[in-house]
Amino acid sequence: MNKSQLLSLIKRKQSYLCVGLDTDIDLIPKHLLQYNDPVFEFNKQIIDATIGMAVAYKPNLAFYESRGIQGWQSLEKTMQYLQQFKGEAFTIADAKRGDIGNTSKMYAKAFFEWLNFDSVTVAPYMGEDSVTPFLTYKDKWVILLGLTSNVGSKDFQFLQSGEDKLYQSVIKKAQQWATPEQLMFVVGATHPEEVKGIRALAPDNFFLVPGVGAQGGDLNAISENGFTKECGLLINSTRNIIYAGKGEDFAEKAAEAAKAVTADMVKFVKSM
Amino acid sequence: MNKSQLLSLIKRKQSYLCVGLDTDIDLIPKHLLQYNDPVFEFNKQIIDATIGMAVAYKPNLAFYESRGIQGWQSLEKTMQYLQQFKGEAFTIADAKRGDIGNTSKMYAKAFFEWLNFDSVTVAPYMGEDSVTPFLTYKDKWVILLGLTSNVGSKDFQFLQSGEDKLYQSVIKKAQQWATPEQLMFVVGATHPEEVKGIRALAPDNFFLVPGVGAQGGDLNAISENGFTKECGLLINSTRNIIYAGKGEDFAEKAAEAAKAVTADMVKFVKSM
Repeated sequence: MNKSQLLSLIKRKQSYLCVGLDTDIDLIPKHLLQYNDPVFEFNKQIIDATIGMAVAYKPNLAFYESRGIQGWQSLEKTMQYLQQFKGEAFTIADAKRGDIGNTSKMYAKAFFEWLNFDSVTVAPYMGEDSVTPFLTYKDKWVILLGLTSNVGSKDFQFLQSGEDKLYQSVIKKAQQWATPEQLMFVVGATHPEEVKGIRALAPDNFFLVPGVGAQGGDLNAISENGFTKECGLLINSTRNIIYAGKGEDFAEKAAEAAKAVTADMVKFVKSM
Repeated sequence: MNKSQLLSLIKRKQSYLCVGLDTDIDLIPKHLLQYNDPVFEFNKQIIDATIGMAVAYKPNLAFYESRGIQGWQSLEKTMQYLQQFKGEAFTIADAKRGDIGNTSKMYAKAFFEWLNFDSVTVAPYMGEDSVTPFLTYKDKWVILLGLTSNVGSKDFQFLQSGEDKLYQSVIKKAQQWATPEQLMFVVGATHPEEVKGIRALAPDNFFLVPGVGAQGGDLNAISENGFTKECGLLINSTRNIIYAGKGEDFAEKAAEAAKAVTADMVKFVKSM
């Protein structure tokens, strides 16, 4: 999916909500366990219930990988299911991969050829040749970790070097490798005060913003500091949406939760 | 596998060689394609041929992930095969994972419970809570990226902050999170001049050293600068060993190549 397709999707749905599909078999409603593939069934029902409100879906790979071959099969089926919503949903492999050039190329193959994601999250520590192999695919995106939402973000990302903190160096340097047509940054919602500064450094890039909801981030604060005339934000919510209900009505509850989040987005989208 | 078991393995084999199993179906000998699982067959024959010389095996996950479910099945079978050499080989999931706490926990489950690796490589960018979930498993190890072997290592790892470069901060800080019984560092062989300094920062940790061979690193230079009285090094070689031969005698050629590398290791092991 290219940038103009993503923008038209955002305008059409009046939303920049990304739903995280971090599906944990221990947390899904018990009645789903009778299905052949409970994780896929959960994802399918979540997608069906939220597709009107969500512009993106983001499975975190760890939740699938932890279940072995059957986990990967659930993910493969989920991605196949999402193909029918082509043009209706931007897909993000939240994988945080990154390796030397010839190896990152293999990861690109996994996410862009096998699973057909639109984008993949990448860790910046190994630098340029760990990132650029993902950029050789037309209309596919790298979402590079900038400032993450977790407590551990304080360990290295704020280290000051010259005039920049590490996360600022990452955000500056990566723009030499890719245009805003293929490069987004992860910017955690738990750092609303930094979002304005990051927006100044990367005026035209989309930010994928995790950490709203369960991790404590605030949608309005982020949007006020990061929204641009081309939106520029994908706000991710996971646990608050997919686990909004614990019973047979979990999909309905997820839809309600998604609707509540997107209600706060309308005024920003209208300003585009 | 714990540290004393690893040390006794190194002394017994007079080797600190790790063989990288970055098995690319396009590069393996053509006669293997007749097998049901050519990648597993290749790995099995490489393991059989090199188990006398290698103390560790390191599949890079990208090479398996890029082939979808069948790739993961090849890896699963390879790890099952390696179980029979328990105590004879330390296993490394070269995965370079790392995510927020509850997600890293899922990756730990994938590598330590499903695939039963002894260790996993982890990227440090997201800090403490992305690393510590891997440390809750007894006798399992984190191998944290310190200074990597690729060109892109120059982009961020050398950024100076206060008295330390980023990779030095990583190596110092991570030692607050884990003891040398569970924590190794990746130190690229392409930076022999830095190895001495890194050894001073981390006198008791094992270093996993990629980049010898195809990437140009030199075994002797690394060993002179990094070897300790408890060895402290696992030197990885991949392409020079597993692709030493292209024909039906590939395993034999791999054994010869492994023998040539370990010949240079004997004098260091004898100094332990």
